[in-house]
Amino acid sequence: MNNISYKKGELFIENISVKNLAEKYGSPLYAYSKKALLESYKGIEASLKGLDFLICYSIKTCSNINIIRVLQKEGCGCDIVSGGELFRALAAGVRPDKIVYAGVGKSAEEIDYALKSGIFMFNCESLQEIELIDAGAKKNKKIAKVAIRVNPDVDAHTHAKITTGKKENKFGIDIDIAHEIYSKISKMKNLEAYGIHCHIGSQITEVEPFAKALGKVLKVISKLAESGINLKSINLGGGLGINYYPEKKPIDLKKYGALLKTVLKGTTLKLILEPGRFIAGNSGTLIAKALYTKETSVKKFLITDAAMNDLIRPSLYEAYHHILPVKQSKKTAVYDIVGPVCESGDFFAKDRKIGVVNAGE
Amino acid sequence: MNNISYKKGELFIENISVKNLAEKYGSPLYAYSKKALLESYKGIEASLKGLDFLICYSIKTCSNINIIRVLQKEGCGCDIVSGGELFRALAAGVRPDKIVYAGVGKSAEEIDYALKSGIFMFNCESLQEIELIDAGAKKNKKIAKVAIRVNPDVDAHTHAKITTGKKENKFGIDIDIAHEIYSKISKMKNLEAYGIHCHIGSQITEVEPFAKALGKVLKVISKLAESGINLKSINLGGGLGINYYPEKKPIDLKKYGALLKTVLKGTTLKLILEPGRFIAGNSGTLIAKALYTKETSVKKFLITDAAMNDLIRPSLYEAYHHILPVKQSKKTAVYDIVGPVCESGDFFAKDRKIGVVNAGE
Repeated sequence: MNNISYKKGELFIENISVKNLAEKYGSPLYAYSKKALLESYKGIEASLKGLDFLICYSIKTCSNINIIRVLQKEGCGCDIVSGGELFRALAAGVRPDKIVYAGVGKSAEEIDYALKSGIFMFNCESLQEIELIDAGAKKNKKIAKVAIRVNPDVDAHTHAKITTGKKENKFGIDIDIAHEIYSKISKMKNLEAYGIHCHIGSQITEVEPFAKALGKVLKVISKLAESGINLKSINLGGGLGINYYPEKKPIDLKKYGALLKTVLKGTTLKLILEPGRFIAGNSGTLIAKALYTKETSVKKFLITDAAMNDLIRPSLYEAYHHILPVKQSKKTAVYDIVGPVCESGDFFAKDRKIGVVNAGE
Repeated sequence: MNNISYKKGELFIENISVKNLAEKYGSPLYAYSKKALLESYKGIEASLKGLDFLICYSIKTCSNINIIRVLQKEGCGCDIVSGGELFRALAAGVRPDKIVYAGVGKSAEEIDYALKSGIFMFNCESLQEIELIDAGAKKNKKIAKVAIRVNPDVDAHTHAKITTGKKENKFGIDIDIAHEIYSKISKMKNLEAYGIHCHIGSQITEVEPFAKALGKVLKVISKLAESGINLKSINLGGGLGINYYPEKKPIDLKKYGALLKTVLKGTTLKLILEPGRFIAGNSGTLIAKALYTKETSVKKFLITDAAMNDLIRPSLYEAYHHILPVKQSKKTAVYDIVGPVCESGDFFAKDRKIGVVNAGE
């Protein structure tokens, strides 16, 4: 919702009229504010000043190549989770040595593609995957840098479908056996035990869960050092929470940066972060046309030409997205705002009070 | 799950080895049994023998053009909900006069396309839409046949995201005001009040909800006849339930057909049905490769190359889909069967007991 405002009763993104955008390009339409995108990115950058860090934009957030390109020009790297995302990152001009590859299901073909492209490193999620990367690196006559994604079993207090750092999640390797796996890696000829990775979930607005996870991860690092395995990087994933409700607050970047600086003081660890939502989330706007309004005995419906296939978060997570009429209206109404898909789950909001909208707007 | 079986310990669809399919075409792969498809379609056809009926396959179920073509060759029509689906139906060779157009959000452009294509009729969901079709028909110098989709407020006892016939759903027009809307239609110059439509939800395995809905709809028809508005068709939508669990039973087609025959006896109404899932659901198989297996202190994970983007129903509805190893195994294990997408919601099954599967299978 950054850089969105009413000017003389009409909705604008930066200095561009939303109505004009829809008339020019049709709808449904996604519009992104470059200004908002850069503000968010630079906010994180500023909070880390003084640290040796690499920000890897998590492409899964929004894989539009132009968005990746804008960030790449600022020096941003990429977090990828598939061969397709690697292709997009490279097409957007991201330097391979700024690309980290995560994900529980990397195929042999994707690993090969990543090795040939010369990416920075792999975040690994199982022993079988590690063995496959070792074999792939051998075939390609390379030494692959790897990190283990450890599962620190920290509850990030978010939605069941977006929490990832608990033991029952599919992600990562139990932190208790990390040492054992690193020992195995150190014996593999084509791997370098380079870093450690964790990601505890999405949309975290407090600093405490990060502090907990960091504490656990640093313990692993120092224990490994005792065995002669000296990791060079620590990757804290993403998960920085943003404000979906205008009245709520995003994560406090100053606190987040201060935590990292305090904890990493005196180490030589390179910090890698994989924010996505925090960078792109509030820069994007879905513009929809009101096709019909319909009143029944129990509900008012506002039917738009955008649908769950354009934005599935409300259906999938009951996620709140702020909705604003393009034409400002002092009169309000309570609508179910729904799309044209023949699914009861195709909705953007239920019983939402917004300014009155007429068909055609 | 029709026409799927083990032969000498290996999984077959009809007479084709699933392993061979995956090796030939790669994975993830959708495979459809033409035999199962036709058996289901012909089963419905047989149950309606003696009635004046048109079966319109609901393309939203599976819009693969080859599937539409197989059905079209048997005389099946189509239920569409978008301009894109109309394009697919026509491309598959479906006769325009066997196409019915439903959906709450038809755009002016889509209505125009449908009118120009000469489709059979529109199922309308709001007065504003009806007015738009009248205007479009006038522009195209046509008389458009329309039905109102009435909302009979019947609870079909299914999942919240697939029930559609209750008052709080976005679909249809309150049955109490149907008469009033038909009166308005009868005064519009380019519309013919041709039929009535209702669809109470999906995956209904009992006949009773259909009987309730039919009763309410027939009352509207006879009241309209008293006012001189003589409808020619009754469309009962789809919703015929199938067996997702091998031990459960689909809807009893004999009972369903008998109900329709009893109720429509003595009328001249043409019956339109819009089944989709019942025709295609159990003919399709998603074939996936086991990329990795991973055991944590609390779970066993089976990571496949198919993901929620290939089959979103488990994520979206907590839907059950039967999962069988390609290689039959006497030893079983309890897995979370998950995809490679970085979402905790990316799973096909949790704590599912199946035959032991090894990475690479």
